[in-house]
Amino acid sequence: MRYSELFGKTAREAPKDESSANAQLLIKAGFVEKLFSGVFEILPLGLVVVKKISNIVREEMNAIGGQEVSLTSLQPKELWDEHGRWEKLKGAMYQLRDSSGKDIGLGFTHEEPMVDLVRSRVNSYKDLPIYLYQIQNKFRDEPRPRSGLIRGREFLMKDLYSFSSSKEELDRFYELCAGAYKKVFDRLGLETVYTEAAGGVFTNDNTHEFQVLSEAGEDTIFVCDKCDFAQNKEIAKVKNGDKCPNCDGQVKEERAIEVGNIFRFGTAYAESMNLNFTDVDGKKKPIYLGSYGIGITRSLASIVEVSHDEKGIIWTESVAPAQIHLISLGANSEADKLYEKLTKEGKEVLYDDRDVSAGVKFSDADLIGIPQRWVISEKTLKENSVEVKKRNEDKVILQKLS
Amino acid sequence: MRYSELFGKTAREAPKDESSANAQLLIKAGFVEKLFSGVFEILPLGLVVVKKISNIVREEMNAIGGQEVSLTSLQPKELWDEHGRWEKLKGAMYQLRDSSGKDIGLGFTHEEPMVDLVRSRVNSYKDLPIYLYQIQNKFRDEPRPRSGLIRGREFLMKDLYSFSSSKEELDRFYELCAGAYKKVFDRLGLETVYTEAAGGVFTNDNTHEFQVLSEAGEDTIFVCDKCDFAQNKEIAKVKNGDKCPNCDGQVKEERAIEVGNIFRFGTAYAESMNLNFTDVDGKKKPIYLGSYGIGITRSLASIVEVSHDEKGIIWTESVAPAQIHLISLGANSEADKLYEKLTKEGKEVLYDDRDVSAGVKFSDADLIGIPQRWVISEKTLKENSVEVKKRNEDKVILQKLS
Repeated sequence: MRYSELFGKTAREAPKDESSANAQLLIKAGFVEKLFSGVFEILPLGLVVVKKISNIVREEMNAIGGQEVSLTSLQPKELWDEHGRWEKLKGAMYQLRDSSGKDIGLGFTHEEPMVDLVRSRVNSYKDLPIYLYQIQNKFRDEPRPRSGLIRGREFLMKDLYSFSSSKEELDRFYELCAGAYKKVFDRLGLETVYTEAAGGVFTNDNTHEFQVLSEAGEDTIFVCDKCDFAQNKEIAKVKNGDKCPNCDGQVKEERAIEVGNIFRFGTAYAESMNLNFTDVDGKKKPIYLGSYGIGITRSLASIVEVSHDEKGIIWTESVAPAQIHLISLGANSEADKLYEKLTKEGKEVLYDDRDVSAGVKFSDADLIGIPQRWVISEKTLKENSVEVKKRNEDKVILQKLS
Repeated sequence: MRYSELFGKTAREAPKDESSANAQLLIKAGFVEKLFSGVFEILPLGLVVVKKISNIVREEMNAIGGQEVSLTSLQPKELWDEHGRWEKLKGAMYQLRDSSGKDIGLGFTHEEPMVDLVRSRVNSYKDLPIYLYQIQNKFRDEPRPRSGLIRGREFLMKDLYSFSSSKEELDRFYELCAGAYKKVFDRLGLETVYTEAAGGVFTNDNTHEFQVLSEAGEDTIFVCDKCDFAQNKEIAKVKNGDKCPNCDGQVKEERAIEVGNIFRFGTAYAESMNLNFTDVDGKKKPIYLGSYGIGITRSLASIVEVSHDEKGIIWTESVAPAQIHLISLGANSEADKLYEKLTKEGKEVLYDDRDVSAGVKFSDADLIGIPQRWVISEKTLKENSVEVKKRNEDKVILQKLS
């Protein structure tokens, strides 16, 4: 990518009503733009990161047997009435009446259409288990969108649904998926706390969340300093400073960002929506449902929250918009050649070929946050070298041009 | 892919109210499912095809300088009032009021938010031209959705917007994009007619459409039998059998599917939405806008319409869900080995490993429509061979297993 041609260059200012670090930095660095409260557009650099995050999630979901589908945003009221959630979600789900008088909701989550799809295509025990997922925008009528891309009205999510013939199979997959989530967040460079939580509008059972410790988060969780005890405030019976219920450690209160969650619905949908299968013995039995979400744009925002400094973003290698930020200081023809060479080698390079000052190029590179900055100038060329600096280190080294 | 594990197997029946070949075949073959009128869900096999079509479009858009972004479905009324389309689109655009009292429309098309994005990020002639595109669902409140995936309420589209500093640059890109569209449809195996047309709710100027001749289409166009004259009925001053206005040929009436269209808005948005730039001479000048669409799911449906027989779909190689449909007839351990070998070689194989009759496997293979069917059985193994048949040929050949 030549920076001179890229749409979405750095901006001096971000909207004043967006106080979160993720919105400020992502807008200023040219990754996203705000359309209105809680609604963000993804620019070319941002889309590279979104696709890298999505692909990591996709790989780990495929690895545990997930099959990708794409359901719709438009969903009929009748379907949402079956489990009683049309009324329950009023004011939270966008609900509208179309020109033919039909009541339609916008995809808030997808249990109902997934259950409907599976009951129409699955009959026999031979067809189970089935794990279906999609990576797709969700819509939520948030009264007060906040924290930038952490809580929006339209956001990208991976949602997987498991359909099992027994409680044991559901439990097995639940653990398998928890492990896959851990891998996803590790690959994204996000340290997460596996936290017991409540089910909200989803289920009355306890669920688990993957929480990133950050002041930008909206969740309060209690974490033990010695063992892996972690509970969301919603269900916790402890308070800050209490003795841990599981060991002799102490519980600490933390504000956190929920980047993933996993739910066990059991047979709740089998009952309400007639989600059944015919077992090997010819008998009709209930299908056990699980539901597993990862916020894609929320993960992106979380990475920025936990990995930035006063100068800008510091991208994790695995999701960075490029590997190398190449800066030419008055050595354009040599820089052009190096850019072509690196690109041919399959390296991802953002090449700042603009006719602007060194100061502007350096501060833009810091703001954008690509892992390595390579500077080529008459001075470095005398040594047949480029000056290489990592975004997260101060050290500058001269590296020979081969 | 092992067919035994695949979600979305063949179904005996498709909904009776879907009379089009594309909906009937895509539902029966397990590529899509219908949620309600005009709203289709994409199953795993269908998603492979959708992604292949999308990637061909993406490659050709990148080749002419397109930069991919992802705008939102939720759009504020204020933005659509600027060019006067909020009122104009009433009854066609889904419009709703959120819980805070804000009026929101669902992405019917994206000229307004694209113009808004570019005016906020582009100031100087140095930033132009810019070509932005996205591949994303559009929403249209169709009173009578019809023809299966050809005219739906929610559908996948590629939309590109060009921002130019002069009429000449817009014209140059318009021709360039027309050429890229021709390449896209050639790669998809779709023969298209480049047709002059009207601009609908988009522009008063004439536009161009890429039309696939098919009885499933909703458009009527007049095409000359000798030259490249082609006009949509909306603007045509000729009728069936008339002499061609451009040569001594004869004009014929055809029903057709519009799979792509290109529009020149010129400075219409510069005037209504203040879409300007500062030129090299320091003067404020209007930006020239163009808009270019390709229906992704509509292209998929069109491929099925023009390429099927009474047994099922016949996929074009470039977008087929797999290259090889491997069938085991009582030779499972050899078939397993062959499947592993082909997969390791990077071949895309749908492997029917089910315990069902040869007849079911053959008719499912014909319905699904993968370009090559390979049959392995005790009979073929005696010759150390597989039986290979192309979907679009009757000939069966024995091919040695290496």
